[in-house]
This record gives sequence, structure tokens and C-alpha cells, in this order.
Amino acid sequence: MSRRLVVLIAAANGGTQFGSASHKFLHPLLGKSLLQRAIETARGISPKRIIVAGGDDPDPINDAARGAGAEFIAWGGPRKAASGLAAVRAALSGEESGDLLILPADRPLLRPETLRELLTYHRRRRSDLTVMSAAISDPRGCGRVKRGPDGAIRIVPNGEAGPAELTIPEIEASVYAVRIGGPLFNLASLRIRGTGGRLDAAAFFVPVFRAGGRVEAFMTPSPDDILRVDTRADLARTGARLRDRINISLMESGVTLVDPDTAWIDEQACLAPDAVVAPFVVIEGSTVIGRRAKIGPGCHIVRCTIGEDVVVSSHTVMEDAVLESRVTVGPFARLRARTVLRSGSHVGNFVEIKATDFGPGAKAGHLSYLGDSEVGDEVNIGAGTITCNYDGVRKNKTRIGSGAFIGSGSELVAPVSVGRGAYVAAGSVITKDVSPDALAVARGRQYEKPDWARTRRERIEREKKSGSEKP
Amino acid sequence: MSRRLVVLIAAANGGTQFGSASHKFLHPLLGKSLLQRAIETARGISPKRIIVAGGDDPDPINDAARGAGAEFIAWGGPRKAASGLAAVRAALSGEESGDLLILPADRPLLRPETLRELLTYHRRRRSDLTVMSAAISDPRGCGRVKRGPDGAIRIVPNGEAGPAELTIPEIEASVYAVRIGGPLFNLASLRIRGTGGRLDAAAFFVPVFRAGGRVEAFMTPSPDDILRVDTRADLARTGARLRDRINISLMESGVTLVDPDTAWIDEQACLAPDAVVAPFVVIEGSTVIGRRAKIGPGCHIVRCTIGEDVVVSSHTVMEDAVLESRVTVGPFARLRARTVLRSGSHVGNFVEIKATDFGPGAKAGHLSYLGDSEVGDEVNIGAGTITCNYDGVRKNKTRIGSGAFIGSGSELVAPVSVGRGAYVAAGSVITKDVSPDALAVARGRQYEKPDWARTRRERIEREKKSGSEKP
Amino acid sequence: MSRRLVVLIAAANGGTQFGSASHKFLHPLLGKSLLQRAIETARGISPKRIIVAGGDDPDPINDAARGAGAEFIAWGGPRKAASGLAAVRAALSGEESGDLLILPADRPLLRPETLRELLTYHRRRRSDLTVMSAAISDPRGCGRVKRGPDGAIRIVPNGEAGPAELTIPEIEASVYAVRIGGPLFNLASLRIRGTGGRLDAAAFFVPVFRAGGRVEAFMTPSPDDILRVDTRADLARTGARLRDRINISLMESGVTLVDPDTAWIDEQACLAPDAVVAPFVVIEGSTVIGRRAKIGPGCHIVRCTIGEDVVVSSHTVMEDAVLESRVTVGPFARLRARTVLRSGSHVGNFVEIKATDFGPGAKAGHLSYLGDSEVGDEVNIGAGTITCNYDGVRKNKTRIGSGAFIGSGSELVAPVSVGRGAYVAAGSVITKDVSPDALAVARGRQYEKPDWARTRRERIEREKKSGSEKP
Repeated sequence: MSRRLVVLIAAANGGTQFGSASHKFLHPLLGKSLLQRAIETARGISPKRIIVAGGDDPDPINDAARGAGAEFIAWGGPRKAASGLAAVRAALSGEESGDLLILPADRPLLRPETLRELLTYHRRRRSDLTVMSAAISDPRGCGRVKRGPDGAIRIVPNGEAGPAELTIPEIEASVYAVRIGGPLFNLASLRIRGTGGRLDAAAFFVPVFRAGGRVEAFMTPSPDDILRVDTRADLARTGARLRDRINISLMESGVTLVDPDTAWIDEQACLAPDAVVAPFVVIEGSTVIGRRAKIGPGCHIVRCTIGEDVVVSSHTVMEDAVLESRVTVGPFARLRARTVLRSGSHVGNFVEIKATDFGPGAKAGHLSYLGDSEVGDEVNIGAGTITCNYDGVRKNKTRIGSGAFIGSGSELVAPVSVGRGAYVAAGSVITKDVSPDALAVARGRQYEKPDWARTRRERIEREKKSGSEKP
Repeated sequence: MSRRLVVLIAAANGGTQFGSASHKFLHPLLGKSLLQRAIETARGISPKRIIVAGGDDPDPINDAARGAGAEFIAWGGPRKAASGLAAVRAALSGEESGDLLILPADRPLLRPETLRELLTYHRRRRSDLTVMSAAISDPRGCGRVKRGPDGAIRIVPNGEAGPAELTIPEIEASVYAVRIGGPLFNLASLRIRGTGGRLDAAAFFVPVFRAGGRVEAFMTPSPDDILRVDTRADLARTGARLRDRINISLMESGVTLVDPDTAWIDEQACLAPDAVVAPFVVIEGSTVIGRRAKIGPGCHIVRCTIGEDVVVSSHTVMEDAVLESRVTVGPFARLRARTVLRSGSHVGNFVEIKATDFGPGAKAGHLSYLGDSEVGDEVNIGAGTITCNYDGVRKNKTRIGSGAFIGSGSELVAPVSVGRGAYVAAGSVITKDVSPDALAVARGRQYEKPDWARTRRERIEREKKSGSEKP
Repeated sequence: MSRRLVVLIAAANGGTQFGSASHKFLHPLLGKSLLQRAIETARGISPKRIIVAGGDDPDPINDAARGAGAEFIAWGGPRKAASGLAAVRAALSGEESGDLLILPADRPLLRPETLRELLTYHRRRRSDLTVMSAAISDPRGCGRVKRGPDGAIRIVPNGEAGPAELTIPEIEASVYAVRIGGPLFNLASLRIRGTGGRLDAAAFFVPVFRAGGRVEAFMTPSPDDILRVDTRADLARTGARLRDRINISLMESGVTLVDPDTAWIDEQACLAPDAVVAPFVVIEGSTVIGRRAKIGPGCHIVRCTIGEDVVVSSHTVMEDAVLESRVTVGPFARLRARTVLRSGSHVGNFVEIKATDFGPGAKAGHLSYLGDSEVGDEVNIGAGTITCNYDGVRKNKTRIGSGAFIGSGSELVAPVSVGRGAYVAAGSVITKDVSPDALAVARGRQYEKPDWARTRRERIEREKKSGSEKP
């Protein structure tokens, strides 16, 4: 790959069948937009330049392209075809040698390996233009690759194909390698294909086709790679294939996916061998999951780091959290950003934790909210404990020392500290710091009104009978 | 379709393979029973009458048929075949012209379009009887349509088919159009087919077949339409197809379904373009979802109205609620009937809201229960807030004025009002109305017993050592 | 099946493609390991002995085999092949008549029926060795069964197959019946196949093949049965098939599975007719579900007993609980071990119950934790009620008498009793027993600081303007 390589990504005018207010190329697929995927695929073959030809400038394609480190040129659609062509010519005019790879942005399954094979073929054959082709079972609607008796390659657009040509199973995939400086790299003769004025890769070479030069077709052995996204159904379909790829690769690396058909795991995620993922799980972003960690049914995990031997029970939702080894969480736990669960700690059902450092061996088993807290080793947080971290103006911190015991149903009104080894009585509202090893109580005294409930029942009963219902 | 049209829906004696205590035809498929679906399909071609032939009268089929606005006649099964035939004759005896369409109630995929095509064919061909047929790959168990060299159509019941006939791929679909008043509309000659005495559509014409008249077969181009539900596996299978249809139609209209294979959306639901539905979502009834609304993984939504730009995070369950635009809810939120979340409000995890008007910009982020409440603009409901709306006798109202701040862990004992701009201290039990702009406190005072916790630990430790464990 | 039968299960040296720290044969599939499944399948044909040939001794295969009541012999892998052979010889040396069935442990779909058919065939044909074979569409990588013109059967290992033999679709399934005492049951001539030294079933007979004797091949009509698990993808694939079998059988018995593709139900579970299972449900272990019970979307149920007409709403998680008839639970309920919900009781959202007997008609609708409790008939547990069952040392009991009413937001500090018909005021911390029919109150008194909130707001506003933010 030492020859100079420029990739031009065609990302203009797509998505009329999406019925969407946003560009087709900006729709996400497993956490990345189609455009982002095309740029990453291009980057996988280490080109000198990546140029995205999008719609009008300024537009979100421009932002996305530049955000991903690519160049942008405005194609501008049918009405501005002349300026679009000028932009392409300007962008490429300085190129004198090497190859131009033209890549449509709506083929999210295309892999760098496949592009590399195309380029290798193109260079070995000393071709001026190499078309990627594939043999597929239903070639309807696609341009065909016609191989003449002398081996000459001709692209027949679908609309121009005669009955015999329509039976050709080899289609062209709108992916092309063009030798820069060759007879087919003729910027001056670039034209718009058809009346639609769509920028697709074909625009770049169809007119020059009849100008001579050596044309080759590289038939990819992975026809799945070239699936095109025209509709939202295509998007879902390619998403499913992409997911299959990810899941097969995870299984090959030693991960147990109980139900690969319902495991949605982004490719950025990294799961260690013997991690187990139950059905109906969604794992997003650059999540890391350690050996033997178990993810239960219905979990939704976004950008988390999960240590070895962690058990995440069903229906746990977490984002941007860190779980050290041997932590147990869930079911129905909710971990939010800047949560760290230290090793061996436990967070149970209906517990929300946010921006909290939760000490080794600490436990919060039930119905609690810990926000902006520091919780020491082996602390016991009783059911229904709430850190009152927000006073209407700012978020305040709660500190709980190691070995402390927070009785159930307590409120800790931050800023407040509970000392090491202290004990907060159940049902207390703690507004002042608690000394280490002390007992703190803050609740009403209990008193009783004998027979009150019976008297009330009887009165209600009487009133019901008399038609009134005032208790 | 100006000719008079009567639809007879055959819904008797089905379901022996269902192993169910309720009629096969009453089993639901994506929110509607098979019978209801048949009646709605019939209604789609605007007949003058829809007659359901069910089992014994009174029975639930009768109720369901009349509930859906159809007529009902009792077929009554094998033992009452004579009375069943009499009922059919009586129901149709007044009909003098037009067409009778006979439709089995166990073909939930059949569409009005397909019936309309059948009728058009039937009328154009001036047919006396037109059979709907389909070419399928596995015709076992079905009656075959035999086309003679002269074009004459003959139905061969599966049991009477010879080896050559068994290879015919064209089957009859138990859907028939009969010209009323024609030679094949001979009510007097109606008979029960076979020994089972089952009422299926064939009962109406098989005996008259040999009586002459013009018979045609209309081969539907959509053989999927005629899939019959005999078993619960069939029910699941047709449910999956029905769901595919709904989902494809949603995607065509601009909705993003991340995983159409796990999206269960009733056909009554209406989703706007650029709404996004994550995997593992169930949406039931006449739910409406606005543009750009996002429904997270695992949500279950029943008869709700969801505005534009709403974000529903994972595992949120709601029924009969209204969410105005830009609301954010979940994860793990639960919205019940008569809940209105005003625009820009937020409901977080482990929060249940029932019969509450929740003001614009109001927030209830954590572990709360709001029932029978009115909550003003920009109110902040602290974590663990509970409206004590039930006193054992009746439900009472809680009113919270705009801009109020309810401290975490508070109970609001209804009926009670918190004035505009008031502040309830964390951990308070509010039993009396709070004045606007006031601070209300209702909690115990905090006191401390120094070293109590250490002394207790040491005592427990000693007792453990001495074998006793009384703390 | 009166002839003596010994089953030898080959479970050594597998799993190199699993990338796992634990044996392939110990990986679970719908709640049972591959080895356990092989042993249970073997037990289904009532052999006199079941011998598991695993890896080195002691190892987890040994433990699992003995735990399941089988014998264990150590095969020991390539380097210890001699001792492995010796172990096999020793284990079988006492056998003098009957049949030896050799069964690989990595065929989890194999059914006793199929083994029984193999044995019947083997015995009827008076065969010395009968190979199970199957015709499959993609025989690559498998040993082929070559049938000579004289009917003689020869096994051609994949590696030794010539071009013509590679086209044979009939493969051997590594399942063999050998007549004990026959010419092919020659323990002395046992050898290791190939260079890998793997113990697979073929090791037992390949060397003796050329020694004569009557060899037959039984072609199973259920080729799915012999699917082999080599990779984790195979594990997922066979898991899906196993699940299909279970689900089809459930539907045939009258259970409604709305979406069989997302229903994960262990085969030990027992569901009554007209039970309804929504999508995305996981049911594990020996769960029993009664007639007309409804299991909502996203539920996870482990070893529970659920009565008739119970309604389990979405996202309910329960293990080792008993629900009597007409109970309603969920959504978002969590039931833990030793929970009994008596008939007609109700447990609502964000409620956790553990080790509690919850009386007939009792209700706990919202955000509560009941642990180690006895709750009487028709008790009403208000929202946010918490039993403080743990004091840092031990779990204590809470008893609530019939007809009692626990106001919302109460803590019950165990050990404590609330008498029959008593009423606990909302927001109380109950530390002492409450008398029957009494009212118990234990909360702070409410007082108000007029204008405090407004003054505070104004101060904050001023400070914000002056750049300071201290409230």
C-alpha cells in the first residue's frame, strides 16, 4: 500500500426513502452514523486523504465529516451540479499519481479488508479503473458487469440492460478504484449521470468509460459487504448483519452470548472470555467487561467498565460507571455517571447511585438514592436511605465513614458527614454531622391512641350506611 | 362495488388444537381477536351486512360479534347441524341479488385489498361461484383446485385427492364469492361436509358444486394472506407476519425501528417520522408518538400520547398517560392512568405517577409516588417523596404550587396543599397546608449518644466469643 | 430393552474452540450443562450403567458426573492416552453381554427416542456395531458413511475421503451401539485415532473395524438431533433449537406464547393451558404456572410457583416465591426467596418482598421493602413502607395483624408487631409494638417559617448577581 491513495466518499443527496428530517448518512447504526462508518472503513486502508462529497455547504454532513477528520466538498444536488463538479475537480486537481478510491457512504457492511483486496487486484492488474462487483441472487435494480469474450469489462446500468443482460448475476457495487493520471482519471470529462443529478460514484467514471483504458472488475467473495442502505428497512437489515458479525466475533473470542439474536453490543465494547450475556441486553459505547462477569436479562449498559466476576442482575441500567471486581448489582439498579463501585460491594433493587465512590464491601440493598457521596469500606446503607444532595441551588456532598451503619428510611441532608463506625437509627433525618462511633437519632417519638382505628372504622361504617361518607 | 354484498364469517367449532378454555376465534393477535380481525377485514370492503356464524347461542362469539357491530347466527356444531343450517337459511333467505362472500375467521392476514380483488374477478367473469386459491410450496392437508383442460374448476378435498391431484400446488383458501340468486346459491341444498359437522366455508357450496353453474378460481398473488390459524404455533406465526407488515409500514413512513424483530407495535399505534424505537419494546393500543421522540429498550407503552422530542429511557412502563413535548422520563418510570406530564417536565427512576397533572418544567427524579396530585410549574420533587393519597377510605388530593421545592424523603399527607414557592424541609411529614413562600419542617430533632455504636460492637463481639449472640 | 445396556459418554478434551477456562461440557444450555444433558438423555433409555469418560481426575467433569449419579473414568488427554485406554478397559472388562452405547457429550439435541430407535435397529439386525448416521445438506468436516454395493458399511473419516466420497451426504454422528462380546467389542485392540489423541467415540471402534463383524448404519430421521457443539456459536445455535422444541411443545399443550422467538423457558418449567407469556420473558428452573396466568413483557422468573389467574405485569423479577391464585404483581416488583403471596393479594411497582408471608387480599402497591415479615389478611401497606429487618447483627421479624393499615412512608423497626386492625400514621417510625385497633403516630410536629423560602430566594439571587453563590 505504498502507492498514494485518496478516498472519495460519496454522501450527497441520499435518503429520500427515509422520510426523515435528517440526512440518511447521519442515521446511526449500532452507535455510529453511516458516514462515520464509511470514514472509519476508509481510514482502515490508510489513505493520504479522505474527502467526503456531501450536499450543500454548510450542512450537517460537512460538520460530521470534519468532526471525523475528513475533508468536505459540497456536491450540492441536481440544481448545482456544475458547482459540484467544479468542487470535485478542485479537490482532486493537485493529485498526480497513485489511486483514487470512490466509496459510497451507504454501504455500512463494507470492510477495510475488502477494499484492500480491491486495491491489490487493481494494482496487480495495472488497471486504470477497477470496479468492485459481486454475484448476488437477486440482481434486480443494480447495474450489471458484462464481461466480453475478450475479457473486456462493461458496466450496464440497470435501466439500459436488455433482457439477456438482466439475467447477469454479477452486479457492480458502486465502489471503484481509479488510477490517478491514467486515461480514465479525466477530471475534465466528469459528468452527471442520468437526469436525477444524483452524486453517486458512477458519476465519476461513466462518461470516461468509452474513452478507453484498462478496466477490470474485482468480484468480492463477500457479497454481503456491499448491501446498500436505501430505506429504513435496509438500515435495520444491515444493522442485524453488523450485529451478527460482532456477535460471532465475540463468541469466537470466548464470550457466552445466550441469545445472539437479542444481544445488541456495539463494536467498541470489549468483553473478556467467559463473560456471559443473557438475552435482551443492550451494551453501548466503549464498555469493558471482565472475565466471568455475568450480565442478566434486560440490562442496558452504556460506556461502563465492569471488572472480573461481577454479577449484574436483570434489568440493571448503567452509564459511565466503574464496577470493580466481584461487585454485585441489581436487579433494577441504576448507576449513573461518576459512580465507582469498589470491589466486592453490593447495590440492590431500586437503588440509584450517581457521582459516588462506593467503598469496598459496602452494601445498599434496597430503594435508595446516593448522589454526590463518598461511602467508606463495609458501610451498610439501609433500605430507603436517601442523600438529600440538592437544596434547590447546588449539589452538596455526603460522606459516610468506613463501617458506619445507616438505618433504613433515613435521610442524610447534605452537606453532612457520618463518622467511621457510627450508627444512624432507622427513620432519622440527619442534618448535622455524626461523630465516629456514635449513635444518631432524629425522629419523632411514638405514641398511641387506643381504639382510635376501631372507632374510626365504626364511624365510617355508620356514615356509609346513612349515605354520607365523610370519615 | 355498487352491487349488494353480504359477508358471512365462519367462526364455529374451531380451536380443538388450541387446548384452550376459550374459543380459538377469541384469542388475541396484536391486540385484536381473530374474530375482530375478520370483522374488520370484512368491513374494509363495505358490505351491507356482516353475519358471524358462531357456535351455540348464547356464547362469547355472539357477544364479540354483536359488540363489533355484526349479526350473529348460531351454527351449533355437529349435533345441532340441522338447526345450524336452518339459521343460515333464515339469515340469508331475504337476499335476492348481489354477492355472498364467505370468509373463515381464522385467516388473520387476509386483507380487504385481496377480498376486493376476488370480488372484482368474480364480477368481471360473471361467475356463480369464485374460489380464492393460492399456489403454495407445501399444499399438504389442503383442498386442491383442479383446472380441467376446458378451464373448468373443480375443488378436490384433500381426503379425496388421488396421487396426481396431491401434487397440485394450487390450493383453495376457504374464501368464496357466491352470486346470490345464481344456480350455486341454493340454500335448500346446503349440507354438512364430511362427518365432523364442522362449519367451514366449504359447507356452503360443496353440495351444490355438482349442480352446475359457472365456477372460477381467483389465485391470489399474496399467498401469505391465507395462512390459517389451527394451532397456537400458527397463531404465533401469523402474529409474527402481521408484526412484520406493521413494522415495514412504520419504517416506510419514516420511523426508525432499531430491531424490527423485537418491536411489538399494535397497528392502532401511530408513530411520527423520525421517532426512534429501541429493541425489546411493546407498544399497545392507540398510542400516538411524536416526531423525534425516542423510546428506549424494554419500554412498555399502552394507549399513551407522547409528544415531539420526548425521551423515554429504558424500562419505562406507562398506560393511558399523556406526555407533552420535550418531556424526559425513565429509566424505570411508571406512569398510570390520568397522568399528564406537561412540556419539558422530567420523571426519573423508580417514580410512579397516577392521576396527576405534572406542571411544565417540573421534576421528580427519584423514588417517588405522586397520586391524585396537581403539581405546578417548575416544582422540584425531592427523592423519596410520597403523596399519602389514601387514608384507607378514599383517595385525597395533593396540590403543590408553582416553584415549590419538596425536600427529599417527605410525605405529603393528603388532602394537603403546598403553596407557591414554598419549601418543605427534607424528611418532613406534611399534614397541614403550607403557606406560599414559607418553609415547612416536620421532623424529629437530632441527638447523639456518643460511643454507643462502639460499645455495642464490643458487646456483640464479646457475646459472640462467649457463644451467646444476644446483642 | 431387556438386554443389558451400558452407556459410555465421551466427555474429554473438548472445548479448545470455546476459549473458556471451564470445560466445554460444563457450559450450560437452558439451565443444564452439556454433560448433564448427555447423562439425562442416557438415563432416558434406562441403561444399567452410565460411564462418563472425562479428562484428568480429579476434575470438574468428575464432580459433575458423580453429582449426576454417573460413573467416571479419567481419559486424561493425548499425553496420558495409555492410562486412558487402560481406564476404559478396566471399566468395561466385567461386561460380558448386552450392548455398549457410545455417546458424545456435545450433542445436546439428541433425544432418548432417537437412541432407542438406534438400539432397536441394532438389535433387530443382530449387528455387531451400529453407527448412527444422518443425511445432511452440508457434510463438510464429517466422517462419511459409505455403503458398498453389497450393503457393507464403511466409515470414511473426513480426512481420508476422496473426491467421490466427499460428495456423500450421509455422515456418521459419533454415536455407536456395539454388541458386547461381539467381534467388534475388542477392548484389547482399542487405540487412539489420529495424532490428536482426542477421546471421541470413534476411538473405540476404528481400529477394530477392519477386524470383521457385522456393521450397520442407522440413519436417523431427525438430523437436527446430532448437531455437535464445537464453538460457542454452536452452543447458541443448539440452544435456539432446544428452545424451539420446548416452545412448540408448550404451545401444543395449550400455552400462549406471544413471541416464541423471545421466550426463554427452561424445560423443567410447567405451564398450564391458557397461561399467556408475553415477549422478552425468561423462565428458569422448575417453575410452575397455573391456568390463565399472564406473564407480562420482560419478566424474569426463577423456580416460582404461580397460581391460576395470577397477573404478573411487565418487568417483574422473582425467584423461589409462591403466588397463590388471583395474585397481581408488578410492574417492577421483586420477589425473593421464601415469599408467599396469598390469594388475591397485590404487590405493585418498586416493591421488594423477601421471606414474607403476605396475607390474602393484602396490598403493597408502591416503593416498599418487606423482609422477614408476616402480614395478615387485607392489610394495606402504604407507599414507601420499609421493614427495618436488619440491625447490623441479625434479621428480625415484623408482624402485621389482619386488617391493619400502615400509612405511607412508615418504617417498622423490627422486631415489632402491629396489632389487628391498627392504624399507623403516615411517616411514622414504629419502634414499639402497636396495640390492636390503636392509632400509632411517631413523627415530628409540623411548624412553619413564614417567608423563609422567598427571603432565601432573594438572597441567593442577590449573591448570584454579586458573583458569590453562597446560599
